[in-house]
Amino acid sequence: MFQNKVPAAMYIGNGFGKLAGYSQVKELGNIETPIVLTNTLSVPTAADALISYTLQQKGNENVRSVNPVVGETNDGYLNDIRGRHVNEEAVFNALKNATTGPVAEGNVGAGTGTICFGFKGGIGTASRKIPKTLGGYTVGVLVQSNFGGVLQINGVPIGQELKKFSFDKAVLNDVDGSCMMVVITDAPLDARNLERVAKRALLGLAKTGGIASNGSGDYVIALSVDQQNIAALALDAPLYEHRLLKNEAMSPLFLATIEATEEAIINSLFAAKTIRGKNERLIPSLPKKRVLELMKAYGRIKE
Amino acid sequence: MFQNKVPAAMYIGNGFGKLAGYSQVKELGNIETPIVLTNTLSVPTAADALISYTLQQKGNENVRSVNPVVGETNDGYLNDIRGRHVNEEAVFNALKNATTGPVAEGNVGAGTGTICFGFKGGIGTASRKIPKTLGGYTVGVLVQSNFGGVLQINGVPIGQELKKFSFDKAVLNDVDGSCMMVVITDAPLDARNLERVAKRALLGLAKTGGIASNGSGDYVIALSVDQQNIAALALDAPLYEHRLLKNEAMSPLFLATIEATEEAIINSLFAAKTIRGKNERLIPSLPKKRVLELMKAYGRIKE
Amino acid sequence: MFQNKVPAAMYIGNGFGKLAGYSQVKELGNIETPIVLTNTLSVPTAADALISYTLQQKGNENVRSVNPVVGETNDGYLNDIRGRHVNEEAVFNALKNATTGPVAEGNVGAGTGTICFGFKGGIGTASRKIPKTLGGYTVGVLVQSNFGGVLQINGVPIGQELKKFSFDKAVLNDVDGSCMMVVITDAPLDARNLERVAKRALLGLAKTGGIASNGSGDYVIALSVDQQNIAALALDAPLYEHRLLKNEAMSPLFLATIEATEEAIINSLFAAKTIRGKNERLIPSLPKKRVLELMKAYGRIKE
Amino acid sequence: MFQNKVPAAMYIGNGFGKLAGYSQVKELGNIETPIVLTNTLSVPTAADALISYTLQQKGNENVRSVNPVVGETNDGYLNDIRGRHVNEEAVFNALKNATTGPVAEGNVGAGTGTICFGFKGGIGTASRKIPKTLGGYTVGVLVQSNFGGVLQINGVPIGQELKKFSFDKAVLNDVDGSCMMVVITDAPLDARNLERVAKRALLGLAKTGGIASNGSGDYVIALSVDQQNIAALALDAPLYEHRLLKNEAMSPLFLATIEATEEAIINSLFAAKTIRGKNERLIPSLPKKRVLELMKAYGRIKE
Repeated sequence: MFQNKVPAAMYIGNGFGKLAGYSQVKELGNIETPIVLTNTLSVPTAADALISYTLQQKGNENVRSVNPVVGETNDGYLNDIRGRHVNEEAVFNALKNATTGPVAEGNVGAGTGTICFGFKGGIGTASRKIPKTLGGYTVGVLVQSNFGGVLQINGVPIGQELKKFSFDKAVLNDVDGSCMMVVITDAPLDARNLERVAKRALLGLAKTGGIASNGSGDYVIALSVDQQNIAALALDAPLYEHRLLKNEAMSPLFLATIEATEEAIINSLFAAKTIRGKNERLIPSLPKKRVLELMKAYGRIKE
Repeated sequence: MFQNKVPAAMYIGNGFGKLAGYSQVKELGNIETPIVLTNTLSVPTAADALISYTLQQKGNENVRSVNPVVGETNDGYLNDIRGRHVNEEAVFNALKNATTGPVAEGNVGAGTGTICFGFKGGIGTASRKIPKTLGGYTVGVLVQSNFGGVLQINGVPIGQELKKFSFDKAVLNDVDGSCMMVVITDAPLDARNLERVAKRALLGLAKTGGIASNGSGDYVIALSVDQQNIAALALDAPLYEHRLLKNEAMSPLFLATIEATEEAIINSLFAAKTIRGKNERLIPSLPKKRVLELMKAYGRIKE
Repeated sequence: MFQNKVPAAMYIGNGFGKLAGYSQVKELGNIETPIVLTNTLSVPTAADALISYTLQQKGNENVRSVNPVVGETNDGYLNDIRGRHVNEEAVFNALKNATTGPVAEGNVGAGTGTICFGFKGGIGTASRKIPKTLGGYTVGVLVQSNFGGVLQINGVPIGQELKKFSFDKAVLNDVDGSCMMVVITDAPLDARNLERVAKRALLGLAKTGGIASNGSGDYVIALSVDQQNIAALALDAPLYEHRLLKNEAMSPLFLATIEATEEAIINSLFAAKTIRGKNERLIPSLPKKRVLELMKAYGRIKE
Repeated sequence: MFQNKVPAAMYIGNGFGKLAGYSQVKELGNIETPIVLTNTLSVPTAADALISYTLQQKGNENVRSVNPVVGETNDGYLNDIRGRHVNEEAVFNALKNATTGPVAEGNVGAGTGTICFGFKGGIGTASRKIPKTLGGYTVGVLVQSNFGGVLQINGVPIGQELKKFSFDKAVLNDVDGSCMMVVITDAPLDARNLERVAKRALLGLAKTGGIASNGSGDYVIALSVDQQNIAALALDAPLYEHRLLKNEAMSPLFLATIEATEEAIINSLFAAKTIRGKNERLIPSLPKKRVLELMKAYGRIKE
């Protein structure tokens, strides 16, 4: 991947976070390592492992500069975060075992210890395929959900129904946390339009009830995996040819990003399971039965 | 006002717009003129009028530099925008007649010719008063609504019910436009935290179904009108004393901004009236009866 | 030009200024009108004229949105700036009479009333042609010089020799003003790399002794006029093909921008002539004879 | 320090670098750990050590979130950077041994393996004390110099005299590297004005011949150590009182930053000593005798 840099951008919804790699992506418009997600205090360990991994790849024998991209959310309520139990081996294993195909959701990886709207959060994914007449591109979103607010699902006030009101001190005390969002599209975009895409992920987060609170690290990483553009950029020449989508054709991608982000967050809640963590602390999963009842009561699911 | 500059910030949700005054507010952290809202092609006229107005104020006899702040949305479908009918006198009258008290909403001023979600938009306002225990501050929002998407009201899918679906070409062709948002709070904030507040207004816009489309000029201006801080800044001394809210106390203001922006946009739709504009073009107001029925059907209004 | 938008970016060195058009260029990565330079209080008039001009061009009969780009510096010491004597006709004439070929320098156009390092400033230009082996591109810079500091010419401390010392209150009281810089290159660049180019113009300004003081509006506009890219962007299709220079090939362009900006500022001083302005105020031109003596004394010009 | 956060800002001159901590400083306006400087591939190790250090401090027993700030330049030509020899112990020792008083310069710490303008670079410092009538504040700058270009010392073209010309391929091939700059002032500034200060450090770098090349990581960290403001921010209350310098009083600080940065870079060259590194590579120190001769020949040092 270091030899085949991928056009990329980041957007910081709220910067209370320790994400590694921001400034170089912003400056150069691409990403040169896999993206690792972990917890707040393990970012350096993961970044270090990404450097080791990159230095070891064939063809990188003379590489002396690597920009590892590592995102995080804080799982310190459930996890003994101060113990920093993530080690280099764990990161190597994650990189080795990464495959294509469906992505595991819920209490997995960096989503194991996260909490979202007071329930067990985790990894969630969703995508949208834009109609052919609007470009036909796909937008996929992966989130690591770990934030608060008053939950809305497809517009239904689940949080309120569960007695969580917006200006309750209890809700606002719990509102911190973070949401890492990764948006990947096959639309041929450069960094400028990828940053615009990244910005829209926050609008999807808003629709779930997120408020990007003061203590939240809400970061979006957006990548364009158009293979022809990636290959063109990797050629050894001062100029490269890119085929790019015009500004005027971007709105469907914005909409797709908003919808897929909203859905990915909701999916993370549905996929996550009740967990008992540090000091016997229990975080319940989303009460799915009750939620479905409410979705029906509010006319969003037909009986 | 030129002598009593107000701490301020701006956030650009999507920059397809012609707002005047951005860079100086960003650099200096304050606003020195009233804010005028108008249509896209009348920004220069309004800016010029604001300069005249400022130069004429007592005490400004030697002023040779003014940073007029003018926002806009494009009302070119209903209004003969190319005719540029706004003149200096109209701006002077608006400044002269500005008062405290309730704000006129709907088809007034710069909201006269705007369209929102396919219905007549316009000026809308809303506010939140944060509970005493969370600071007790007030956040007021004024919007000039002129954008598209699939309308949601308090989570209810009004747009979909009216046969407007998210990836319909018709909807996406109409999605452009803009939303000017002005957020005013009595919380004592500096420009940095005002910019964070401004950013949250976009999250409120998202909850109505807005997507900050490619052709949208979505700008937020946020001001802190704490009188003690304004007075301190106006004193003739190299140092000033400000009493400021800590980062840790910001989340309730973020939430208030999101809620008030969402509501202000919805209020603009409820206040606006059907209008016939240029070339006999008709833009209907929100079908309020149908909307209320849907709000009931979706359990959001008790019968 | 509205139909043939030009890839562009802006960088704000210090934002105490009233430049029109920033946010849309930043968002969309291109410029759609000629660039007009004027004085601080005439920006709206010039912007309005640019709108009129654009609306009147053939093919723009249905255009309802124009992003005029207007830069400015404050000539209020020499010019009756509050009288706002620039009118639409003057702007139209400037647009009509614009030609290719050598650019008039010194006391012309928006440079008529500017002051730089205490001497008469004005319009200045310079360029660099990069060696073939480094790309062979050309970078041209035009400045409107109106700022203070302690003048250095090619490293020679002209200001100090003329008894202007860096922390003198007199110098610092006079340090405000602004510098508009326009950088044009035939290198095929997108907005991201143009913004990086724009940033380097400030480094050139620094070498003349400029400090981007608090009251300075130091803006850089950078454009790439590669004709193939401009034509590709103007085609009516959702995708466009651009041939772009890689990040790795940018450094020579950065260097060229720095050198040409430094030289353009110095050229503006050499070209400008002593002027008597408002209230009989006299601003002398650079004392060229004395400067050349100093250049010799400091070994920069061989006798 | 975690309990006594320091108002801070960062500015990215060119973002080809791996600095840790940017986004949180940008968002919250303060720094909560000591700043560590190291080499490119050791940033994670240093960040991890800073986390350990912070967690171990008395009073931080429940801290679960730390934003370590670590800067870097790439010393891979002289140092076996891929071996990542910096370890936690080395960072702890550096933190333990940090004292007030004069700062060691040249080949020390993170400056041991750096190269600047083709000569041995390293750590350099300089400061300016602004005259009482302009505020009386002090600005101190520390740099870790590791970049290229055509060296100028106080305006004298040392590089050219040593046969290094600006568009030589040899010079441009060597131009990459980075410069970390830390600016500390006792002027009472908030993050907004600290960012403006940080921006000016690049102007100082420009005056030495630096061009912020494509492969350069030029970052500036600026802090205000006004003790009264730091103490006010640390109090346990939602509001804090800050006494702040007005925009209008900033220019002398900008000038001081420019001058001190230029001088700190030159000092780093004068303090650094010839070194033999990895693979017997030799990097000579600045030829001081020759430089002094040139300074005299160019009239900058009186004989």
